[in-house]
Amino acid sequence: MKPSNLLVLTLLALAPISAQPPAGAAGGRGGGRGMFGGPAVKSPEVSADGRVTFRLRAPAAQEVFVTIGGRTAMTKDDQGVWSATTQQPMEPDYYPYNFIVDGVSISDPSNPLVKSIVTGGFQSFVHVPGPSGLSWELNDVPHGKVTHHFYKSGIIGDNRDFYVYTPPNYDPAGKTQYPVLYLIHGFTDDASGWTTAGRANIILDNLIAQGKAKPMIMVNPLGYGTPNPDTNLSAVMANPERQFQDVSRALLQEVLPIVEREYRVAKDRNSRAISGLSMGGAETFYIGLNHIDQFAYVAGMSSAFVMYPKPAGSAPAPGGGRGQQQHLDAAVYANVFPKLDAKAASQLKLLYVACGTDDGLIGVNRDFKDFLKSKDIAFTNIETPGAHTWMVWRRNLTEIAPKLFR
Amino acid sequence: MKPSNLLVLTLLALAPISAQPPAGAAGGRGGGRGMFGGPAVKSPEVSADGRVTFRLRAPAAQEVFVTIGGRTAMTKDDQGVWSATTQQPMEPDYYPYNFIVDGVSISDPSNPLVKSIVTGGFQSFVHVPGPSGLSWELNDVPHGKVTHHFYKSGIIGDNRDFYVYTPPNYDPAGKTQYPVLYLIHGFTDDASGWTTAGRANIILDNLIAQGKAKPMIMVNPLGYGTPNPDTNLSAVMANPERQFQDVSRALLQEVLPIVEREYRVAKDRNSRAISGLSMGGAETFYIGLNHIDQFAYVAGMSSAFVMYPKPAGSAPAPGGGRGQQQHLDAAVYANVFPKLDAKAASQLKLLYVACGTDDGLIGVNRDFKDFLKSKDIAFTNIETPGAHTWMVWRRNLTEIAPKLFR
Repeated sequence: MKPSNLLVLTLLALAPISAQPPAGAAGGRGGGRGMFGGPAVKSPEVSADGRVTFRLRAPAAQEVFVTIGGRTAMTKDDQGVWSATTQQPMEPDYYPYNFIVDGVSISDPSNPLVKSIVTGGFQSFVHVPGPSGLSWELNDVPHGKVTHHFYKSGIIGDNRDFYVYTPPNYDPAGKTQYPVLYLIHGFTDDASGWTTAGRANIILDNLIAQGKAKPMIMVNPLGYGTPNPDTNLSAVMANPERQFQDVSRALLQEVLPIVEREYRVAKDRNSRAISGLSMGGAETFYIGLNHIDQFAYVAGMSSAFVMYPKPAGSAPAPGGGRGQQQHLDAAVYANVFPKLDAKAASQLKLLYVACGTDDGLIGVNRDFKDFLKSKDIAFTNIETPGAHTWMVWRRNLTEIAPKLFR
Repeated sequence: MKPSNLLVLTLLALAPISAQPPAGAAGGRGGGRGMFGGPAVKSPEVSADGRVTFRLRAPAAQEVFVTIGGRTAMTKDDQGVWSATTQQPMEPDYYPYNFIVDGVSISDPSNPLVKSIVTGGFQSFVHVPGPSGLSWELNDVPHGKVTHHFYKSGIIGDNRDFYVYTPPNYDPAGKTQYPVLYLIHGFTDDASGWTTAGRANIILDNLIAQGKAKPMIMVNPLGYGTPNPDTNLSAVMANPERQFQDVSRALLQEVLPIVEREYRVAKDRNSRAISGLSMGGAETFYIGLNHIDQFAYVAGMSSAFVMYPKPAGSAPAPGGGRGQQQHLDAAVYANVFPKLDAKAASQLKLLYVACGTDDGLIGVNRDFKDFLKSKDIAFTNIETPGAHTWMVWRRNLTEIAPKLFR
């Protein structure tokens, strides 16, 4: 018994089902797959020493770049396949990249590993595998589940979603009540960012299996306080008051009650943590430090304090030109945290301020820490190598999760 | 209070976070978003009369097509934005399309509505909105949830996933035991296909809210019987015995036990249905009709019987050239269903064979129905307008779901 060539003929006849355009005069179906067209290209390909080769079939393209830590021109072979190989071996990690084909940025059509962008399009990632001890590696341990919730937000005024991770052995009918980490994505991401690029479910699987983190539920809300960010993302920046006020209200008055009704969770402040990256870091502090009665653990990563609403009359602090560190006047923080003082903050079990030293936001994070110091508020000060990237944030989460709910 | 231009400066400095490459000499950042580059383009845009305009910013591209019901050349304006508008209004539905930029097929970077392709890349969809009575429209009704499961398959030999829809008001600690529909995707899709392009969770939400379908759990398994289909999809076609045997074993021995352990489901054959499209339709019959003791409802859509293993010595039946209807010898079906007879089939509460009359697979579906008739097996014979498309399959599901578990 073997497949007849009837199968091949049929699949050709069915080409419209395949999400592939029909071959034609304009260079044939392009990209990476060879199922119906030319031979498949493998991309990305990671060599044993950690060098990465990127490939794209694009016979008719004039110019193709790969963007990974900068922009690298790719070269075309006589089969119309463009390729480029990193000059140096890359350390084990997940790195973002895309292609630019005649000026158009695209994700790698040969690579299913991507993160969604809320307005459309995708960012590709290449996995340079490492030892199982790296928190983001998929190991042979029990895996939690990720549940996608859909609801109509009366506060924001749109239909939106959030995700809930339940740990291995979570029993919805059992007696165990789990603590909850609310973990928020950054600007341009959607609610799935932490479980795709962030690999947060895999990280928690591993940390829980190793006994390093307590079994917990993780909630990834949508971090936009304005409606329909997929078609109107600019509203987020145009209306910072609404952005922060409404994302806070939606989390506390809509998402949190659904989670506490539908999951077996502990409902006291010592069983709630809030964290997030970039815009989500700014939201973390905005929500957490204004609701210390509800969250005992507050941890921001590479927080985009620059998005905070500015009090009338405040001027930018020195700096802030392109490529320079930005700074924010203390009045901005005082405006956002009017009731924060040392006594209130002393109720926190964790106040964690993390940022990479190559991050353009390091300046405003240091300004924020100066503001905390001016109030005699203790915090965990984390400055790591790295820029504004998921390579930093996965490591941040790996450090933060074990500190929660102790 | 208003945002200072510090915010804009900072976001420029942070451009690497945005999943967008830096602007440069090769035409600038391309695609659709204008947050950091030129003005945003809106794509797709549906006019009040149902005409659809597609747009892509690609100043340096030589040739851009949109593929929607064929390939249409787009035209470039003096801003470098390519566009094309459908000549006719389109009936309300979700239609697949992509762009071809200098020979490379890409999804629409301005449109987050996509379906994943298992090997990488995406298919875009445009929503032409219709009345709320259309089963796939998002209505103001209670929504179920979709849970993403991850497990290591000993049978297939890889790490894989499946999705579980739980209906509104599903109570994991309650007494209600729900029936289960196992619903399988087609070739090149992944396990998410039915809840993205298929909108199966939305369809079930609506049918349940209207009282047309019984509240049920839906499981969307991964329909590949060979390991790592994301990097080795051709193995599926190269080894049809393994494909069908192992996908059947993985469903019955791995996925089904997890579902029946972790969800409140009824575990008798009258509470189990199996359905699927294309490759998943061929699997539906392969699994369902060889396990009538386990499934009382079996419903295939546009089933790709051409993928079945061929008995030694069988020859293709006449037909089968490109663009022609394919046919399969009855010996193929007799080989795949050795124990099927009228007595066994009489235990089925539904045997449903659906296919569009413009589908290249209509011939093999008619052959299959002839095979059933030759065995005196009763079935529901559905031939609808339409080709091998999601426009057909969403309607199929809308017809099938109300017939289940009655």
